[in-house]
Amino acid sequence: MTIMAYNLLKGKKGIIFGALDHKSIAWKVAEKAYEEGAVFTLTNTPTAMRFGEINELAEKCNAEIIPADATSIDDLENLIQKSMDILGGKLDFILHSIGMSMNVRKKRVYNDLNYDFFMKTLDISSISFHKLLQTCYKFDAINEWGSVVALSYIAAQRVLYGYNDMADAKALLESIARSFGYIYGREKKIRVNTISQSPTRTTAGSGVKGVEGLLDFTERMSPLGNANAEECANFTIVMFSDLSKKVTMQNIYHDGGFSSMGMSMRAMRQYNKSLDGVGEDDI
Amino acid sequence: MTIMAYNLLKGKKGIIFGALDHKSIAWKVAEKAYEEGAVFTLTNTPTAMRFGEINELAEKCNAEIIPADATSIDDLENLIQKSMDILGGKLDFILHSIGMSMNVRKKRVYNDLNYDFFMKTLDISSISFHKLLQTCYKFDAINEWGSVVALSYIAAQRVLYGYNDMADAKALLESIARSFGYIYGREKKIRVNTISQSPTRTTAGSGVKGVEGLLDFTERMSPLGNANAEECANFTIVMFSDLSKKVTMQNIYHDGGFSSMGMSMRAMRQYNKSLDGVGEDDI
Amino acid sequence: MTIMAYNLLKGKKGIIFGALDHKSIAWKVAEKAYEEGAVFTLTNTPTAMRFGEINELAEKCNAEIIPADATSIDDLENLIQKSMDILGGKLDFILHSIGMSMNVRKKRVYNDLNYDFFMKTLDISSISFHKLLQTCYKFDAINEWGSVVALSYIAAQRVLYGYNDMADAKALLESIARSFGYIYGREKKIRVNTISQSPTRTTAGSGVKGVEGLLDFTERMSPLGNANAEECANFTIVMFSDLSKKVTMQNIYHDGGFSSMGMSMRAMRQYNKSLDGVGEDDI
Amino acid sequence: MTIMAYNLLKGKKGIIFGALDHKSIAWKVAEKAYEEGAVFTLTNTPTAMRFGEINELAEKCNAEIIPADATSIDDLENLIQKSMDILGGKLDFILHSIGMSMNVRKKRVYNDLNYDFFMKTLDISSISFHKLLQTCYKFDAINEWGSVVALSYIAAQRVLYGYNDMADAKALLESIARSFGYIYGREKKIRVNTISQSPTRTTAGSGVKGVEGLLDFTERMSPLGNANAEECANFTIVMFSDLSKKVTMQNIYHDGGFSSMGMSMRAMRQYNKSLDGVGEDDI
Repeated sequence: MTIMAYNLLKGKKGIIFGALDHKSIAWKVAEKAYEEGAVFTLTNTPTAMRFGEINELAEKCNAEIIPADATSIDDLENLIQKSMDILGGKLDFILHSIGMSMNVRKKRVYNDLNYDFFMKTLDISSISFHKLLQTCYKFDAINEWGSVVALSYIAAQRVLYGYNDMADAKALLESIARSFGYIYGREKKIRVNTISQSPTRTTAGSGVKGVEGLLDFTERMSPLGNANAEECANFTIVMFSDLSKKVTMQNIYHDGGFSSMGMSMRAMRQYNKSLDGVGEDDI
Repeated sequence: MTIMAYNLLKGKKGIIFGALDHKSIAWKVAEKAYEEGAVFTLTNTPTAMRFGEINELAEKCNAEIIPADATSIDDLENLIQKSMDILGGKLDFILHSIGMSMNVRKKRVYNDLNYDFFMKTLDISSISFHKLLQTCYKFDAINEWGSVVALSYIAAQRVLYGYNDMADAKALLESIARSFGYIYGREKKIRVNTISQSPTRTTAGSGVKGVEGLLDFTERMSPLGNANAEECANFTIVMFSDLSKKVTMQNIYHDGGFSSMGMSMRAMRQYNKSLDGVGEDDI
Repeated sequence: MTIMAYNLLKGKKGIIFGALDHKSIAWKVAEKAYEEGAVFTLTNTPTAMRFGEINELAEKCNAEIIPADATSIDDLENLIQKSMDILGGKLDFILHSIGMSMNVRKKRVYNDLNYDFFMKTLDISSISFHKLLQTCYKFDAINEWGSVVALSYIAAQRVLYGYNDMADAKALLESIARSFGYIYGREKKIRVNTISQSPTRTTAGSGVKGVEGLLDFTERMSPLGNANAEECANFTIVMFSDLSKKVTMQNIYHDGGFSSMGMSMRAMRQYNKSLDGVGEDDI
Repeated sequence: MTIMAYNLLKGKKGIIFGALDHKSIAWKVAEKAYEEGAVFTLTNTPTAMRFGEINELAEKCNAEIIPADATSIDDLENLIQKSMDILGGKLDFILHSIGMSMNVRKKRVYNDLNYDFFMKTLDISSISFHKLLQTCYKFDAINEWGSVVALSYIAAQRVLYGYNDMADAKALLESIARSFGYIYGREKKIRVNTISQSPTRTTAGSGVKGVEGLLDFTERMSPLGNANAEECANFTIVMFSDLSKKVTMQNIYHDGGFSSMGMSMRAMRQYNKSLDGVGEDDI
């Protein structure tokens, strides 16, 4: 890696959820956090670990791995306690990068949802964030001015064909960030934010319908192009650092400008190519 | 009643959820819908019916009551089928006015939630809306250009002390309105919206913490004052009528302007009264 | 016309700005307002009148025409005074449908604006709305619970290629609606809102770059399709009626759902047609 | 100063507008930028310089001062050219911290604006930002991945009593940031954002009506308390750094959480103190 480090997280302790393989945003966050002087533990579900390459990351970052199902309070308690033991004190930052929909996996469309799956989507992708925060709160596990970040997506605000019940999960996730951010800010001066990232070519994201066409569209719509995982990691580091102390309860778009676009020149030109010979009746 | 009727819903058929007693917004919607020429069925949970005065309303509006637990697909199927039988055809409008939090009732604060209660809050207050829409979709129970409205609250966007997990439920509700609104619009030309209403003195709302001080504050903050249940019913009728055909996937604030206020003269003056003799250190 | 009237504006008095020809939204609003029982005056600039067919409309609606440059306080004073004289009392509703950019007309792109033109764009398209409201306020020209609506466009929130400085004008317009809406609400119980309408095939809108491709895209993105001028007029009537009394300082999207979309199935499919044979390098 | 520097702006060149005295946010940004390794020029109007202490800052930061009226293209051209000459190359960052309303100064309330003053408010506080960007664009004065930030305030979205036409100016400013951000992003990979800062005790801000009561209210509403000028400077540095490369066309709230609050426990308790003995009729 050729990026210069700034020591932005020197001496800070944290937990990073969701590193599966080298494409994961959480993976990049771990690499950057390490470069910036942080110590941390890594966690993921036992299943995810079997498929992933997380041991390679752990070695590189000198980090221990603590498996945890983020929907289980017991697992979260164990994770938090062990992390504090290993790191030698309270936490300064946490990354929540977790999302899963059985409806998407089983190709149940949004008007034919299985409700057990829907509940599971919400429990894994959103309520896990509340469980994490509530467990940290009970253990008083985060230092004053600590920072908690969850990764979100613009589907929380606008419908994207095929994103299915994950859209509702992200809306719920962002609401939990606001609701708990209020209490954690008021009581402990701890901030809670979400970063709304461009669609990203990760292994986890590859299940979403028609992702290639969408990535082309968002690339042309975004004046700076789609943000990649490494760029997202850089901005996440900033949100963990002491330089963003008074930003809380926000959802910040890290998306090359996509969220503020209605139509770009490049996307329009590309779209217009599709229209040759298309009559009004066809619409 | 002295309000002139306009025949805005002449010949339209619907279902109204959530009329408990004469303070309920749903009660007022039923009265107005009747005045405007609609026919409809009323529904609520068996428990709510025992306490409420819904029979009085049913008589007044010449409407049948069909009990239903809105989290039960079976009950929803029965409700929708029977409603179409009784009303003699497909539906044109539905009002979803449902919300309940056991965490609020049992005084579990937001950083000490019971997760079974939280799941129940979401199931009753938000997922019930998806279940309703999905069941209607399966039975093809709504006419083209039909309109579905759910009642929401600004807590979906901004934290209000004491509103607890109902805030997350409203955020999820509004997301479901967008997500299903996309599909129902695309496939059947049916619109789905939420109305974000001022805090309202209903029997259901009286459990929320410190509601009197809040009502005073929002009254002074809102240039037109808080909107009451009857005014909300008027606007709901508009959203059911043919005059709002192209409004969909929106959350419309019906709140006297509160949502667009940062600080009003009247609220500031009142607030300043509290500050006499308050030093900086006190903050 | 085959639409049934509801008498929603029976006895109400108003002023309608911006009817140029039968394609204008303001033209449709005038027709509907007439059907709904309102009396009103029509106004436009002397220049617009020469090109338009406004006399035909005036005759049809039994309305007088009062020419006015909406940037001139003198003209506005004359318009308001005369309107009250003609209509026999204070006003209940006003429609502001005014927009013009010399930068667009003279093909000055947004990074090469002429600043005299820019100032003019803002004066005509946005500040005229403040001048109108301030003049009405001084003359106490609007009845309690009166309603003022200005037409806006989503470019106020999101960049659309080619819309140029009109985007900034719409953002300013919506801000003025909020700012003055606060005062008019507080002091006189008068509401001020903007309606953010789909791109519409009007004579005035035809100058915007690449409008055909955009209309195709927004048609496919919006689950209900683009809203047309007549539908917009229907919703405007609602906002003038007594049924929306507590809605103020809002920008309401009347756009078939476009504003809540990130990507639709239909737009994606159309876009994908353009991608055959397009390599990554091409983006 | 005891804050550790990170070298976040090492080798970067910039221009900082709006440092008046040591209370100014721009002053703090200059100090931090210097600590972080940047070189830059300082600018303000000739009048502001007479009253301010900017020479002290210039000396401290080893920066030259170039007077400029930000509404004058000539002055901006001179400023940009000289800055590149002095700094030895193109710019990497610019801070726009400019706002002034004659209507506020002359106590013209919002429903009695002087329109020459209003135009001046917009020219100084908003259009100056476009002029700055357009002039930079013409001179190709900013390096790829450069960053431009303007300071804004939540009055752009929500009405705050007494903020007057500055609210409209901030709405226009934020729109210009989006509109030009699109073009500068697309053509030059340069990002443009606004930071929406807590009300801050600056010399410039002291003219706003009733600012003490408001500061108390926002302090109690914001879970982390109001953000101060130094904290704002820290976050501005982040936005200038390479770590926020893909954030553009955004308005980011740096406000201790205020923007996401509807009502806090602390503000409600304080407000309730004012209500003792207040009857309903009083509202």
